[in-house]
Amino acid sequence: MKKSADESALASENPVTFSALGERAQPPTIARLMTMALETPNLLSLAAGFTDNATLPVDFVRAATEAMLGNPGDREFIQYGTNQGRPRLRQLLAERLAKIEAKLDAAELSRGLFVTNGSQQALYLAMQVLGEPGDIILVDRPSYFVFLEMLTGLGLRAVSMPVDAAGKIDAPALGALLDSLASKGEMRKIRAVYFVSYFSNPSARSLDAAEKTSVAAELSARGLCIPVVEDTAYRELYYREAPAAPSVLSLPAWAKFPKLYTATLTKPFATGLKVGYGLCTDDAWLKKMLHVKGHHDFGSANFNQAILEHALVSGNYDRQLEQIRPAYERKMRALHETLVREGLPTLGWSWAEPTGGLYLWLKAPESLDTGLDSAFCRACLEAGVLYVPGELCFGDEAPKNFIRASFGVLNERDLAEAGRRFVSVVRRFV
Amino acid sequence: MKKSADESALASENPVTFSALGERAQPPTIARLMTMALETPNLLSLAAGFTDNATLPVDFVRAATEAMLGNPGDREFIQYGTNQGRPRLRQLLAERLAKIEAKLDAAELSRGLFVTNGSQQALYLAMQVLGEPGDIILVDRPSYFVFLEMLTGLGLRAVSMPVDAAGKIDAPALGALLDSLASKGEMRKIRAVYFVSYFSNPSARSLDAAEKTSVAAELSARGLCIPVVEDTAYRELYYREAPAAPSVLSLPAWAKFPKLYTATLTKPFATGLKVGYGLCTDDAWLKKMLHVKGHHDFGSANFNQAILEHALVSGNYDRQLEQIRPAYERKMRALHETLVREGLPTLGWSWAEPTGGLYLWLKAPESLDTGLDSAFCRACLEAGVLYVPGELCFGDEAPKNFIRASFGVLNERDLAEAGRRFVSVVRRFV
Repeated sequence: MKKSADESALASENPVTFSALGERAQPPTIARLMTMALETPNLLSLAAGFTDNATLPVDFVRAATEAMLGNPGDREFIQYGTNQGRPRLRQLLAERLAKIEAKLDAAELSRGLFVTNGSQQALYLAMQVLGEPGDIILVDRPSYFVFLEMLTGLGLRAVSMPVDAAGKIDAPALGALLDSLASKGEMRKIRAVYFVSYFSNPSARSLDAAEKTSVAAELSARGLCIPVVEDTAYRELYYREAPAAPSVLSLPAWAKFPKLYTATLTKPFATGLKVGYGLCTDDAWLKKMLHVKGHHDFGSANFNQAILEHALVSGNYDRQLEQIRPAYERKMRALHETLVREGLPTLGWSWAEPTGGLYLWLKAPESLDTGLDSAFCRACLEAGVLYVPGELCFGDEAPKNFIRASFGVLNERDLAEAGRRFVSVVRRFV
Repeated sequence: MKKSADESALASENPVTFSALGERAQPPTIARLMTMALETPNLLSLAAGFTDNATLPVDFVRAATEAMLGNPGDREFIQYGTNQGRPRLRQLLAERLAKIEAKLDAAELSRGLFVTNGSQQALYLAMQVLGEPGDIILVDRPSYFVFLEMLTGLGLRAVSMPVDAAGKIDAPALGALLDSLASKGEMRKIRAVYFVSYFSNPSARSLDAAEKTSVAAELSARGLCIPVVEDTAYRELYYREAPAAPSVLSLPAWAKFPKLYTATLTKPFATGLKVGYGLCTDDAWLKKMLHVKGHHDFGSANFNQAILEHALVSGNYDRQLEQIRPAYERKMRALHETLVREGLPTLGWSWAEPTGGLYLWLKAPESLDTGLDSAFCRACLEAGVLYVPGELCFGDEAPKNFIRASFGVLNERDLAEAGRRFVSVVRRFV
């Protein structure tokens, strides 16, 4: 058989070429961090997003599996479930949310609720169905870095909502930004607004009701009724007091907007079970996400959903929250107080003490570059401590002088040691 | 604040519009089938792809969870895992495959192996990263209908490889098809070839070694060294004898092609756990899929992977296979023999008796339309029996006279009753 010139050219190419559908190339940050961690013996990682090992609810997971598997006549837990998720679990979650936000109707919430492989999949589905390459997603500043990398992967452009010196969304500046996008003819490209609203990853900040309302007001004033995605992954991870701000689901200013509320059940329980959910108020958007989920995996693992269902019904889920809230506060303090005691604030660094979540968001003097390739980062690695460079957590115009330090996985002793190592490096860069 | 005309127009539009990234619109067949099932009391469904309830391995799953959760000091099972999957599980799976196909090297296989949410996610990742809208994927005929719907969703075009009267891939006709695509300038659009090679969904056929080799030969002869995806979801679900044909991983004709072997661990175990995997021989392709998986969910549930790891190590996985193989053969016979006894072959219908898998693939007389909207399908529903119309299982030029009848979920008595109902309807359409 003869080959044409064209066919021979084809044969000599790399046969695996990739497409826009398959996301754009970009630096795989997590992979680099993990490689750094693996290559450094005795490293204490403040970078890992893992949760506390000591409080993982072995007993509560066992109570669930024993109850489920103890009756051999009932095997539905290990049979396929449905694409949208277990109806009873969806109902329980809707009721739980309606209890926190009294204005909400549980039956209505349950209809729009779908269970996912962690809340990450809900975020992915939301962005996959909304954006065309080149479209704009408005994001908080700083924002969740895996979300930002995902946007890049999908060819979407993150545009940060401006913040004031205290880190609050600056409504007039947001208005000016929107006007500037309008004047460039880019208004139609804005497809959604995204923020992590409670004890944010990475900033540990929560948005208050007025702040959320102000975003809606600036959008509404410009006729921009775009989908909003509120990522509430850390909402239940407060230390002492539940955050007061309602979600966009019940804030009047957001009433007319299509809304997606995302949350995880397993970040504050057992991360190895990976059950999250999205709750969508717009039928067309929901239908489209479920459609794509039908192709991703046609349903998250039924067994894991049933474990969470048991934990919620038995009260073990709330018992677990009661255990981990003070535990994470102690861990936060172990790191925070070490940094204070070692003198970090006297070296020009500042941060707010969190009241929930898993992160300290440290601001260094502006002259210090903390990036992955910086001398400072290398020195930290050599001293046996790793962090997430803050520059990864900005959708645009990333400053170099922030650091996300997670106290999720290390124990208190190691957190104190990591803090000491960290400040000892900082001293060398003053 | 004044609104421009442009902005007012925007506000009056439906704010949720969708994009190519988010897959194209298409009829959600499974949803329609499920609605049909829900609306029909006493329905016996030969459509559902669920697995046998009676043999679901409650005891083996319990053995795994008890072993894992019995030692409160070891909590890693319910902590986050890694994006690629548990190293030990990947090693076990690679060794298992290397045992069946002696030419393969377990260590090398393990490097290319990644764990997914069922094998469906591996198929999704493969297609998401390979194709641009308008590109062509060569598929078997008939083929797995969720895969075909997914291609449509991603804007990819399925082109069937021609088959002979016995259902075998017709190599000369495939060659002619490729030449015809070349003459239309579409050779470069062909991005991958896909087939379900063992006890296929829907045809229950297996491809023999010569058949697989002939596909590689036709591609090679035209310089077309494209990625191949071999879907082996039913490979372990033989009734008596393991299928003899090696996979593309060890067939010499495929040596130079980039290969992805996909499989599920839970279809023949506990579908509610949803653990599948892909095994990729091409580094760039693998890296790209892992990259996107990092954004989908950054890793499948660690707990479920650990359960499967326990089942494999303890031998329970193989014990389960030994139990379900004769059970599915009995179920196949319950349906197959009822159809024979009730006289279906005398009414112009034909099919091959499967030696593995979960499906009968029934060929009706050519004049009979069995589609979802056909009078025949409605009559079946009224008689209390549902099936998957064969027309859904063709990438192109779909005949109307095939039916996929699953014997996975119904028990033997119900299968016999479903068979009787089915033939009684067929008699009315002769």
